Order: sequence, then C-alpha cells, then structure tokens
Amino acid sequence: MSNLYHESGHTKQTAYKVPRMERPIIGIVGAGQLALMMFEASLRMDLDIRVLATDADDPALRVVPGSRVGDPRDAAVLLAFASEVDVVTFDHELIDIASVRSLGVAGHAVRPGSAALAVAIDKARQHDTFSRLGIDQPPTVLVRTESELRAAMHRLALPVVVKHATGGYDGRGVYVVDHEQQFDRLVAGGVLGDGEFLVQPKVPIDAEVAVQVVRSIDGEILAYPVVRTIQEDGICTMVQLPAAIPDALARRATEVARLLADHLDVVGVLAVEFFVSGGRLLINEIAMRPHNSGHLTIEATVTSQFENHLRAVAGLPLGSTAAVVGAASMVNIIGSDSSPAPRPDRAPIDAAVHLYGKSHRPGRKLGHVTAVGDSIEDVVARARRAASALEPQGAGT
Amino acid sequence: MSNLYHESGHTKQTAYKVPRMERPIIGIVGAGQLALMMFEASLRMDLDIRVLATDADDPALRVVPGSRVGDPRDAAVLLAFASEVDVVTFDHELIDIASVRSLGVAGHAVRPGSAALAVAIDKARQHDTFSRLGIDQPPTVLVRTESELRAAMHRLALPVVVKHATGGYDGRGVYVVDHEQQFDRLVAGGVLGDGEFLVQPKVPIDAEVAVQVVRSIDGEILAYPVVRTIQEDGICTMVQLPAAIPDALARRATEVARLLADHLDVVGVLAVEFFVSGGRLLINEIAMRPHNSGHLTIEATVTSQFENHLRAVAGLPLGSTAAVVGAASMVNIIGSDSSPAPRPDRAPIDAAVHLYGKSHRPGRKLGHVTAVGDSIEDVVARARRAASALEPQGAGT
Repeated sequence: MSNLYHESGHTKQTAYKVPRMERPIIGIVGAGQLALMMFEASLRMDLDIRVLATDADDPALRVVPGSRVGDPRDAAVLLAFASEVDVVTFDHELIDIASVRSLGVAGHAVRPGSAALAVAIDKARQHDTFSRLGIDQPPTVLVRTESELRAAMHRLALPVVVKHATGGYDGRGVYVVDHEQQFDRLVAGGVLGDGEFLVQPKVPIDAEVAVQVVRSIDGEILAYPVVRTIQEDGICTMVQLPAAIPDALARRATEVARLLADHLDVVGVLAVEFFVSGGRLLINEIAMRPHNSGHLTIEATVTSQFENHLRAVAGLPLGSTAAVVGAASMVNIIGSDSSPAPRPDRAPIDAAVHLYGKSHRPGRKLGHVTAVGDSIEDVVARARRAASALEPQGAGT
Repeated sequence: MSNLYHESGHTKQTAYKVPRMERPIIGIVGAGQLALMMFEASLRMDLDIRVLATDADDPALRVVPGSRVGDPRDAAVLLAFASEVDVVTFDHELIDIASVRSLGVAGHAVRPGSAALAVAIDKARQHDTFSRLGIDQPPTVLVRTESELRAAMHRLALPVVVKHATGGYDGRGVYVVDHEQQFDRLVAGGVLGDGEFLVQPKVPIDAEVAVQVVRSIDGEILAYPVVRTIQEDGICTMVQLPAAIPDALARRATEVARLLADHLDVVGVLAVEFFVSGGRLLINEIAMRPHNSGHLTIEATVTSQFENHLRAVAGLPLGSTAAVVGAASMVNIIGSDSSPAPRPDRAPIDAAVHLYGKSHRPGRKLGHVTAVGDSIEDVVARARRAASALEPQGAGT
C-alpha cells in the first residue's frame, strides 16, 4: 500500500502515539488552504485530521501529521487513504467520481457522498438540477462540439460566457466571448479543449452574492448570513458582510441553498453563488465544501464554516452560524506578475491575517485578510489596507 | 543529541520538506494548551513551530511536527532543542533559570530573556520588583522556615494566604490559613515543603482583573482591554470583557503592565493579575506568556495574544489588540472528580469551543469556551450553557 504514495520523510511518520479511537479520524482529499483551515479548526475540537495532498508543496502537507501525497483521481490511492481514516471528505473538485464511488462500495464513509459530489464537480449536472428544482438561472445551452458551441453563440447573441462543465476554478475554464474572432482564436489556440460546455448570455450583473449552509448527517441545516462577493477577472477578490441586498433576495438565496442541500443530500458545507441581475436572483454555481466566500466566518460568526464542515462530516452536532459582528470584509491576497509571496513581517496589522504558505504564482490565492467591526466602510478600508501592506506593489498606493 | 529525548515514532520525524529558512523557527518550551493555541495561530502566519514537551501526553505534542519530549530543566535538553530552532520561548514557568541562562551564553535567542523569566517564575522576586517600582500590592512577608512562617502569621493576623514563591499554578502552591490548627496540619502533612514563601493577609477582594500587554523586540507595547477574572478554589473559572471597573482603575492596571513590561525588558506577552480591594488596585502576580485571562482575545480582538506572542518573539510587528466586539465571556472546562473528559460531540454550540485533547484529571483545565456579542449578560449565559453542555454533570442543570 505504501508505494501508492510518494515517498517523503514527513509523510511517512507513524500515527499518533496516544490512541484516540473513540474519535473519528477525518481524511481530507486535498491539502490546500481549505484543508489547512480545517486542520486549524480541528485543533480546537480535538479531532484527528489526515490529508491527501496532490502536490508535494500543498500547504497543509507540511503541518498535518500523517499526511499523504498521491493522485486523488486514482481509485487505489483513494482506497488506501480511506483505509487509514474513518470518514473521507474533500477540499477540491479535481476528483474522479468513479474512484469516489468505489470508496462507498468498499464500505468507507464519504461525506458528502458520491451522488452529491457528482453534481458538485459538474456544472452541466448543476444546471439540470437547478432546472428541475425551478431555481432561476441564466439561460444556458449545453454543448459538446465546436459547431454546437458556435450555434449556441449565435442563438444566444454575443457577448456570451463559455464555461467548462468540469475542472474550472478561480476563473479558469471560463471564457467571455465578446466577438466571433475572439472565439476563433480560442478554438485555434486549442484553449477550449474537450468535454462539455455551458454557454450563457453575459447577463448584466448588479451584484454577486453567496451563501453557505451546513447540513448534518441527521439533515439539520444551518445557514450563514448571505455575503456580497466582488470578482475581478473571474477571481473573487473581496467578500463583504452584510450583503446589502433586499431582504427578499437574501431570504430567497438562503431558501435555494437549503433546498439544494436537502435535495442533494449534502453532508457538510454547501456554498451557493448567485448573480443579482435586474433585481432577480440567478444561481451561478455551487461548491460542496468550505468556500472562499465563507472565509470571513472564522472571525465573523460563532462557528466557522471550517469547523462546521468537520462537525457535519464527523457526525457531530452543528455549531451556531450566527454573526457575532455587524460587518466583516475579507480580501484575498493574490499572486501578481511582480509580487513575491506575502510575508508575515509585512503585515500591518489591523485585520486578521491568514497566510497559506503557498509558493508564489501569478493569480494564485496566497492568503487572505479579514476585518470585522460595526461599520462596513471601516472594515472594508481596514481589510484593503492590510492586504495592500502584504503586497509590495500595493504598499505605496 | 537524539538520546537526550525520549524515543517516539512521531517525534523522530524529519523536518519540513520545503525549505523555509527565511522564516524563523520558533521553539516553544512546553506543549500544553498555550503551545497548542500558539501552534494554531502559527498556521495562519506561515511560521514554523516546534515544541519541547515535558510529558508524552502533552496536547501540542500530538499535532506539532518536529516535537520533542524532554525535561525542560535539563540544560543539555534545552540546548539540544535550541539548536534546532531560531528562537526559544515558553508556555510554562516550570523551568530552571540557570539552564535558560546557558542558552543565552551559547548564543541562542531566548524571548523573553532569562533575566525577565527569573522574575516571572519567582513570586518573591516579583514582590521585590513591585516594591521597587511603587506598585501597590498586599502587605507581604517573605519567609523561608516554619518559625518565620509562624511569626509572619502572627504579625499579619489570621486569616493569611501562604504562597510558594516558585512552582505554583492553578491554585497549587497557595494555601489560605484561617486558623493556627490549619497551619499545624499543613506543616505536619509536609504539604508546605521547602523553599521561599510569601505570606499575605487575606485582603477583602471586591473583584479580580487582569490585563495583557505585548512588547516587541523594538520595545513597542500594545495593551489588550482589561478583563474581569472570576476564580473558584484558586482556579480561574470565567473571564469577562469588559471588566466593569472604574476607568481610573483600568487605566492604572494598563499603566502598571506597561511599566513592568518595559522595566523587565519583556519580549512577548506579559499578563498581570490584580485584586480590586476597597477601591484600590493591588497587584497579585504576573506571567510572561499567553495567559488564561487572555484566551478570549482569540474571538474578541483583532489579533489574539497567541499570535502577538509569536509576532513579538519572532521579531515581527505586533497586531492590533483592539476589541472587535462589545462583550466577551470565557468559561474554563475543568476536570471534576466525576466528569469524564469533554467530548466534541457533546458541544452545544452557541459559543466557540476549544478542547485541548488532554486526558482527564480533577482540577485540570481541559478546554474553554468563549462567547462574544454585544451584551455581557448574553455572552455570560451562552458561555455558561456551552461549558455545561460539555460536562455531563452540568448537562441536566
């Protein structure tokens, strides 16, 4: 079994010396910042965590005892990992559903389950689900070939948004097509690749909002406050609480998230992203794990999304999702072409700083800062200042 | 060198695979809940932490990569530990100052330094320091022998409080003597042991308060808000923010903490505990590390005492100590004769829960809960409920 994993002094360490069999060991597939923040939460709960890292420099790998490195799409790797833990959960969608399904077949607990995950990792299946449940979404055409894509563009009228059904994240796999030559270049460059695509008209967006709910193994659902998300180039740069949208829309967003969590039998956190367009709420996409739009729950609510995800998958009762402050603002620290990785010694600090320990790469999320307080203006200003101070090019502005 | 440490599969693991020499490795002498919470803070700062545990079941040992087990009073153990890290700090006072001094002689960075620690671990030296600086304290007689003790009791008039100058914590090493027969029993039982003692009249206590300050290597000092502490049988059971004492007393408490931090050249967190007696502020004792009275800073302030202690000893700029909420209440979860260790599955949860993963022992601090919000009545009620739910005997009350 051990030769399924890459060799590493750190990852080959033996298990905890103190037997703690009465507590479930939670195995997280993925070792990015979400796994890191789940590990942080686990330290307060006296829960055991193991992670399966894809890459040797994944941030959670360095600090989580009992970590493993391996391809999460490989059924044999997944099965070996599952055999070392009591329940398997995930911090990303770059998985193979057949492999995940084989865990269930072998009797391993997987939360959320493979049927739910099959929807989470596939925007085409999300679209079908939203349609069946009567959830408003942008007009969408599902296509597979270049000619279907071109026909859909013509039908919907430019500009359109073309999305890979699977594998996209942080703006990757999403293309805005303003004119036909642009589409030709994408095709000629081989950028689009294979698979299924969603084509949607580029709807006018008044605002984007998100909501997280967490669902326990008993079907209890608690909802976090709706937040406003601000994107640049397809990457979320800032999240704000409160969302500052009409109550009716916020209520509907929460209702939709609850409906989806129940319908899909989610266990753990479900994050749902929406466009507000012409006063209407249009669902964009969902994620079945802690989500960037919920990072501010660490400071702004009684129980963070990370702790509640662990509570849910471990079969524990959920913690309160109520806000403890009037306002919060989270700003992502994103690698640019010029900036080196953020360093703690550059932190200012009038906000909570979270650095992920990731190597620098343009467009990569390297950390985030969160300011909480009473006034949205104050917390936005403080979070922006803190983020700037962590990025050299922003320090002088 | 390796045979100085106890053998353990976990603790013999190799160092981080990813070189991070640009960041200081902070070695914490001690692996209790304070080290555990410093480790938690380090995960957001991308700092490296190692701990030197005294006992094989110390909570931080299980989760901090590169942990060691050894006697922290043994100079050879300390030197070996120091050689693996860039700076040494502490989570307890059960150390030997000569051994700590030898680290400095060998060129290792120790923060706070041995001169400051010599005062922190010795209440007799604290008393001298307070006297020299003109800080009000209860009348105190320092004694070494039984006959000196008896004479001091008679001079001060019963009831008196007898305190070991060194080695006490959580009410250990502190004896209230209400009548002479009680003193005789302590002596006959060999309870008092050797060493130096402080004898103080049992002053009428209106309230107890505490304040933490953090001092950087550059001498910058930031103060946390003053908190009220509530003790039962010498153990802190609850901490409340705000302290609800007159402003003049709160200002004086902060002033005294700043004065001491400067005078003693502290690097890191300094916690100072006071009695409020007859409208006066009397200093009780100090600790030169994150302190139980500051646990609520995790949820209630911008930067927790744990993060700021690490920032200070790592030579980083300090984070804001400002409160982000109007009220906070922390309740300790303490082992009783009957209760088993708290379990996360018993958590309620309308407060932040922190379980330390310690084996159960009567009187031992096993965890804490913190509620934050706007109203002190609300947060106290929520923290009490959460703590009760984690203790079986409290669940039905």
